[in-house]
Amino acid sequence: MHKDTPTILVVNDDGITAPGIKVLIEEMKKLGRVVVVAPDSPQSGMGHAITIGKPIRLDRVDLYPGVEMYKCSGTPVDCVKLAVNRVFKGEHPDLCVSGINHGLNHSVNVLYSGTMSAAVEGAIEGIPSIGFSLDDFSEDANFEPARPYVKSIAQQVLNNGLPTSTLLNVNFPNTQELQGVKICRQAGARWIEEFDHRIDPRGREYFWLTGQFKLEDRGEDTDSYALSNGFVSIVPTQFDMTDHRFIPEINSWSFDSEE
Amino acid sequence: MHKDTPTILVVNDDGITAPGIKVLIEEMKKLGRVVVVAPDSPQSGMGHAITIGKPIRLDRVDLYPGVEMYKCSGTPVDCVKLAVNRVFKGEHPDLCVSGINHGLNHSVNVLYSGTMSAAVEGAIEGIPSIGFSLDDFSEDANFEPARPYVKSIAQQVLNNGLPTSTLLNVNFPNTQELQGVKICRQAGARWIEEFDHRIDPRGREYFWLTGQFKLEDRGEDTDSYALSNGFVSIVPTQFDMTDHRFIPEINSWSFDSEE
Repeated sequence: MHKDTPTILVVNDDGITAPGIKVLIEEMKKLGRVVVVAPDSPQSGMGHAITIGKPIRLDRVDLYPGVEMYKCSGTPVDCVKLAVNRVFKGEHPDLCVSGINHGLNHSVNVLYSGTMSAAVEGAIEGIPSIGFSLDDFSEDANFEPARPYVKSIAQQVLNNGLPTSTLLNVNFPNTQELQGVKICRQAGARWIEEFDHRIDPRGREYFWLTGQFKLEDRGEDTDSYALSNGFVSIVPTQFDMTDHRFIPEINSWSFDSEE
Repeated sequence: MHKDTPTILVVNDDGITAPGIKVLIEEMKKLGRVVVVAPDSPQSGMGHAITIGKPIRLDRVDLYPGVEMYKCSGTPVDCVKLAVNRVFKGEHPDLCVSGINHGLNHSVNVLYSGTMSAAVEGAIEGIPSIGFSLDDFSEDANFEPARPYVKSIAQQVLNNGLPTSTLLNVNFPNTQELQGVKICRQAGARWIEEFDHRIDPRGREYFWLTGQFKLEDRGEDTDSYALSNGFVSIVPTQFDMTDHRFIPEINSWSFDSEE
């Protein structure tokens, strides 16, 4: 599936100086040649956003010895697009890894996550891709228990490949005692927003987005269930959003434009 | 499925002053009470981004008589969240419509599109939701041929409802002679980026994202095929991104963390 020394693209959404991407770079250096293209500032919650209304900067930086690194003013998805087009110039990397995110991207969070959207974009580009996330938002999050799994999962993808249009969403619970790996489906859930309502010094109101995660799916085959039981969750992920099951029913609807 | 006078939330990603949302508001006024929460500036390509690093403004505006309208400084998804939490305050609208977008959101564009992400967010919130898009980026796009279909499709959703977690992605080709409606699946495709490379007045390089749409799927059941043959495409859409078909195979992989 890969050459003797695979080329690995590393991206994230927390920004190029985040502790999580440093751990990911260190683990990937054990497996191949590492090229990093990551945002120059935090881009959490950017989903699959791309930058179309303004120009994008891409600049070489040297943070870690022996690693080719670029910081990018755009979104995580921009980083992957620029990596493929401007850094690799058509030579496709053997693997695209995104993260390690500070905070979980299980369940419906796959949609909001810049980390996962970068991995999705990697898969759209035809690169075997993995997003990694840890259940700890803090700057001093402990990524040590995740390290051997990050390396092992990336090695498995290099060895076995992935089907076209399939990527992996890997999440780690925040525990020293990981129970192993569980292959899961995305749990059904949503956020219940509250919006912190405040008044600015000029008397005008503004809002901060806050919210509570509401799990609506107790299935034992879900990523939420695996994580709450101390397992590393892996959700094989794809990006055909068609609801194939509803096609027969909606075909019976009548759309009379002359109503 | 709905009360005598349904309440309809209208959102978009081109901004509250775009011609496309005006058409959508006019058609929805024929069906019920309309409440608009839309971005105060263009938000194309924002995907499922949410605003978490800065505060959001939400202000009442009066653009069209008899319509309750709010402009929002956030993303299209923020608009839906603020509508549900701050405008409707728990009373759920009967329908959420997004658009009409200036530009197609068929195929893989569902991922990049703020229009479609707002509709997806509506569906996550449990509201029957539809995204509408027209194959014309220009300010003076001709929405007239689409009007009767927009009303008819919205009416059908009000009459029949939609399954939980299902929404509709509706696209219109740019033609006076629409051939009718086709129920489709999302076509397989991707963008091949070029990045327009320029030098700023200080001698530093920057990039503009450009690209060519590359259709990789000639299936006659796809939205791309329907649109290129003059049909209105409707893709029933869902947001479980699990690749269920790959679960059996990846279950045979070995993730040895002690490698």
